[in-house]
Amino acid sequence: MSRGPQLVPGDTIGVVGAGQLGRMLALAAARLGLRTHVFAPESGPAFDVCAERTIAGYEDASALAAFAAKCAVVTYEFENIPAASAEVLAAAAPVRPGPRALAVSQDRLTEKRFLQSLGIRTAPFYQVDDARSLAQAQTELGSPAILKTRRFGYDGKGQATIREGDDPAAVLHGIGDRPAILEGRVPFSREISVVAARGLSGEFAAFDICENEHDNHILARTRAPARIGAAAARRSVEIARTIGDALDYVGVLTVELFVVEEPGEGETIESLLVNEIAPRVHNSGHWTIDAALTSQFEQHVRAICGWPLGSTGRLGEVEMRNILGSDAQNWRELLHEPGACLHLYGKREARAGRKMGHVTRVKPAG
Amino acid sequence: MSRGPQLVPGDTIGVVGAGQLGRMLALAAARLGLRTHVFAPESGPAFDVCAERTIAGYEDASALAAFAAKCAVVTYEFENIPAASAEVLAAAAPVRPGPRALAVSQDRLTEKRFLQSLGIRTAPFYQVDDARSLAQAQTELGSPAILKTRRFGYDGKGQATIREGDDPAAVLHGIGDRPAILEGRVPFSREISVVAARGLSGEFAAFDICENEHDNHILARTRAPARIGAAAARRSVEIARTIGDALDYVGVLTVELFVVEEPGEGETIESLLVNEIAPRVHNSGHWTIDAALTSQFEQHVRAICGWPLGSTGRLGEVEMRNILGSDAQNWRELLHEPGACLHLYGKREARAGRKMGHVTRVKPAG
Repeated sequence: MSRGPQLVPGDTIGVVGAGQLGRMLALAAARLGLRTHVFAPESGPAFDVCAERTIAGYEDASALAAFAAKCAVVTYEFENIPAASAEVLAAAAPVRPGPRALAVSQDRLTEKRFLQSLGIRTAPFYQVDDARSLAQAQTELGSPAILKTRRFGYDGKGQATIREGDDPAAVLHGIGDRPAILEGRVPFSREISVVAARGLSGEFAAFDICENEHDNHILARTRAPARIGAAAARRSVEIARTIGDALDYVGVLTVELFVVEEPGEGETIESLLVNEIAPRVHNSGHWTIDAALTSQFEQHVRAICGWPLGSTGRLGEVEMRNILGSDAQNWRELLHEPGACLHLYGKREARAGRKMGHVTRVKPAG
Repeated sequence: MSRGPQLVPGDTIGVVGAGQLGRMLALAAARLGLRTHVFAPESGPAFDVCAERTIAGYEDASALAAFAAKCAVVTYEFENIPAASAEVLAAAAPVRPGPRALAVSQDRLTEKRFLQSLGIRTAPFYQVDDARSLAQAQTELGSPAILKTRRFGYDGKGQATIREGDDPAAVLHGIGDRPAILEGRVPFSREISVVAARGLSGEFAAFDICENEHDNHILARTRAPARIGAAAARRSVEIARTIGDALDYVGVLTVELFVVEEPGEGETIESLLVNEIAPRVHNSGHWTIDAALTSQFEQHVRAICGWPLGSTGRLGEVEMRNILGSDAQNWRELLHEPGACLHLYGKREARAGRKMGHVTRVKPAG
């Protein structure tokens, strides 16, 4: 096994988390001759495609240490690894992206303050620790506003809207009385994301900007390229690059942004506000598997291995749709559709809203 | 697990053989939400990407039966499974392609007679059982001619050229004194292959014809489309279809052909002779991973699952080169090359001539 900062084919990548992102990372790693060792508290989609598996809790220090000791690099498919666990991993193997990316992105308050420190705009927000600070934040921001737990929120979990006249204590109780932030509503015209990679020596490459539509807070549809102007696209990439540089980031980084149309001199200006940072491959980048010269998963593998980044060229106009819950029953129709690229994650139980797979459709360029 | 002729996502595909073809089949199956169980006498590249593994000999009837009992369908990555083993598998699960495809393709004499029975041209050949029949065959075919064992030959193994004045007994001894055929040399201008699929209900789809170059009997380079005329391309596909129909074939089938330029009335005619049949995905079809709407591996999975075949559309002019032996050391340069799609098989030891990976380069159409 290689022990320098760069891996060689045959080396083992450790992936923390066994969901579909881990699964697609393992598939991309395999293509490049790498082995994958997946660590998770229970079996999941990634377990079916990896060379080695560890079943243990995310706070099991000895299991984490034993796992990392067998890996040439450790990465993760989600950002909620406890900081102490990241330290245990980092003592035994390089962890990429590094612990700072985790620390920043797993706490909405830390993340927003970090963005402010870089001069990057976000939605207006206030720290909420109790009903009193919530009431005060509501007075400042107006109604409606969105209450979000600082930690462990995803796909709309840990969020609630607070309206004029609502009882702050009750709304706070609804999200588990946990430390939170209150965010002002942003009158955005589009939601977009930048999926980009930063290599070990600081090189940077972004895929074309993704335009995202959510249903019930869950990503439903991504199209690439996003229908935004060239200036906004350029600034979005610059924002991602600024964040990546500030975190000395290694791997694929996703930045979700709101596009707000504001009147300018004789033309509309597309302002950009960062919604959140995901220190990982991202659902809005799944289209790259079928429609980019390098997939986001291969790109992440290249970056964390200390290898050169691949070309981010796009093969055509792309639409990716998530397959949620019982929609997975339509797999046969999708297999019949010429040119539809079907991806299923091997999940047994199709619970409502669960991401079961996705389908990509590419309209070739030219 | 589904028990009808058609599989459903979540089912397990059994793959006999753990080489790179099994590995790429497992990766394609995973994309469609299927699990893979690999059976092989020893660990190999496919073991790193499958859900379950069985290590046992290809003649271990009880291990084969236990393996097949856990699979919704069984397929294989090579054609040298003993007939008795195929029967054991078939008693417990559908085996696709079926045992007849194995029987025909694992014996060069049976294969050539089968082709003759369909009116398909091959190189001239004679059965060789001993030095006497070899001497007689040499008299008929002239020199030089090629002696090939009937069974277990691949990548030039089990072959010898016999020249004027050679001692037949010595040449036969050189290939192990095994039952053989003597083939007349064919003055071909090109070697091509048809990689095609036949579905459970007889539907048929061929990828564009591949043009192949060998070094030391090992495939070095494939380009698609082959530089042959439209008529020859059409007839090649018809030959593959005739073979598939005659075998009631299910899965991807590869037919290797020689193109011989013969003078016609005012123009050259491209005659076609079948060299051999491979009842499986094939090295010359690896380009489809990066440059066809459906890869040969996904196509094989679709066919053996009883699912509709995918589109065989090609994305551009393609060249695939095998990475053999120590050439694998050049992996870093290939990662640096924009648009080069690198595939490595995870093999540890880079023995001379060993297939370590391949690289595909696509020049987009238009």
